[in-house]
Amino acid sequence: MAGRFIVIEGLEGAGKSTAAACVKDFIASLNVQLLHVREPGGTELGEALRELVKRPDLEDAPAPMTELLLMYASRAQLVETKIKPALAADTWVLGDRHDLSSQAYQGGGRQIDQHLLEQMRDMVLGSFRPDLTLYMDIDPVIGLERARGRGELDRIEQESIDFFQRTRARYRQLAATDSAIVTIDASQSIEQVQHDIQQALQHAVGQWQ
Amino acid sequence: MAGRFIVIEGLEGAGKSTAAACVKDFIASLNVQLLHVREPGGTELGEALRELVKRPDLEDAPAPMTELLLMYASRAQLVETKIKPALAADTWVLGDRHDLSSQAYQGGGRQIDQHLLEQMRDMVLGSFRPDLTLYMDIDPVIGLERARGRGELDRIEQESIDFFQRTRARYRQLAATDSAIVTIDASQSIEQVQHDIQQALQHAVGQWQ
Ligand SMILES: Nc1ncnc2c1ncn2[C@@H]1O[C@H](COP(=O)(O)OP(=O)(O)OP(=O)(O)O)[C@@H](O)[C@H]1O
Ligand SMILES: Nc1ncnc2c1ncn2[C@@H]1O[C@H](COP(=O)(O)OP(=O)(O)OP(=O)(O)O)[C@@H](O)[C@H]1O
Ligand SMILES: [Mg+2]
Ligand SMILES: [Mg+2]
Repeated sequence: MAGRFIVIEGLEGAGKSTAAACVKDFIASLNVQLLHVREPGGTELGEALRELVKRPDLEDAPAPMTELLLMYASRAQLVETKIKPALAADTWVLGDRHDLSSQAYQGGGRQIDQHLLEQMRDMVLGSFRPDLTLYMDIDPVIGLERARGRGELDRIEQESIDFFQRTRARYRQLAATDSAIVTIDASQSIEQVQHDIQQALQHAVGQWQ
Repeated sequence: MAGRFIVIEGLEGAGKSTAAACVKDFIASLNVQLLHVREPGGTELGEALRELVKRPDLEDAPAPMTELLLMYASRAQLVETKIKPALAADTWVLGDRHDLSSQAYQGGGRQIDQHLLEQMRDMVLGSFRPDLTLYMDIDPVIGLERARGRGELDRIEQESIDFFQRTRARYRQLAATDSAIVTIDASQSIEQVQHDIQQALQHAVGQWQ
């Protein structure tokens, strides 16, 4: 079977990293190679951009358009130098965030025009899309509470609840209209979340065979 | 008189920095405030991107699309946080490179589709354009020889002569069809170049009054 690109999406503290462990176990059971990447980041250049874009101490914060371009620069580099070569070599790829994050955060949170965001995506990625996206849906109040356990908040985590409510609303709107996105209720117990993820993966793999 | 945005463009070693001194003298004689910026760079974030994009030692070089997005990220930040505020405060702005560099280097040198480049420019900059661009036209063989005097070459300066010939051809093509771009023959003596620049500035300022 050719490589597949599976992405986990959702707000901070939704449980993406926790879900990733579950997806990795599932993929291991298929006896295929796996590459695990994150965005922004995942390449030497992308990790430098990740640090830059999260820095809370810049003289001037990145303008919304600057932030968008940095996210796409990181993504372009990751897709060209890591993801596409892996898929071509029959390796599966698991992404902690991908393009849907830009559509949701830059579109919902930063309120950049949705048509502009789709144009940017198409210019940078062409028709390249994940085979499956697991969207971990959570109320930001719960997510940020979970995430806060980890220590200091970066520049984006310091945004208002309103910013994250708009981001969640855009995530839900996009998930509702794309059959390659499966919404997981991330407010459930970890066990129930894992069960739902396994089910979604089983269903997807069944379709791919 | 409202602030004006004047840009100096051309290949490495064309004499942009030398020309800038001449433009600064001219602007000083008008008794207006001047902000001198460079691209990529000109902001804290942009200077970090400049360093990143010029680094010759990255594990993977930036893909052409990555490079384009980094140039526009730097430009978006500079325009939003420095250039537009300066112009609004009646300060003139002198730019060492601006959007034309992306059209020429990414379009001619890297051979990214010209329509895509124009789309990117319009998405990021809207209708924002320089009031005047001085394009310092030089044979890259001469320009690189001049530039080499400065020491080690960065990642972009290490490109082939063919890359720079394509870049020059695109510069010339774009300069020929845009009345806000004045071509200066940069192969002339410094004195003659300075004379031509002063004449171009006098003509432009005459039109703006
Ligand atoms: N379903 C759940 N119920 C309760 N707590 C959970 C659940 N899923 C994850 N957690 C806990 O919430 C915290 C954040 O989870 P995790 O790090 O997986 O989120 P994340 O989406 O990866 O966050 P980030 O976007 O910051 O990377 C962790 O302490 C994790 O153990
Ligand atoms: N017309 C000229 N004739 C001869 N030498 C020149 C001329 N103009 C500039 N030079 C010399 O060429 C070298 C490069 O010029 P300069 O630094 O101004 O180019 P530049 O376009 O700013 O280069 P870069 O793109 O690398 O910044 C300098 O040593 C400068 O003195
Ligand atoms: Mg995580
Ligand atoms: Mg110079």
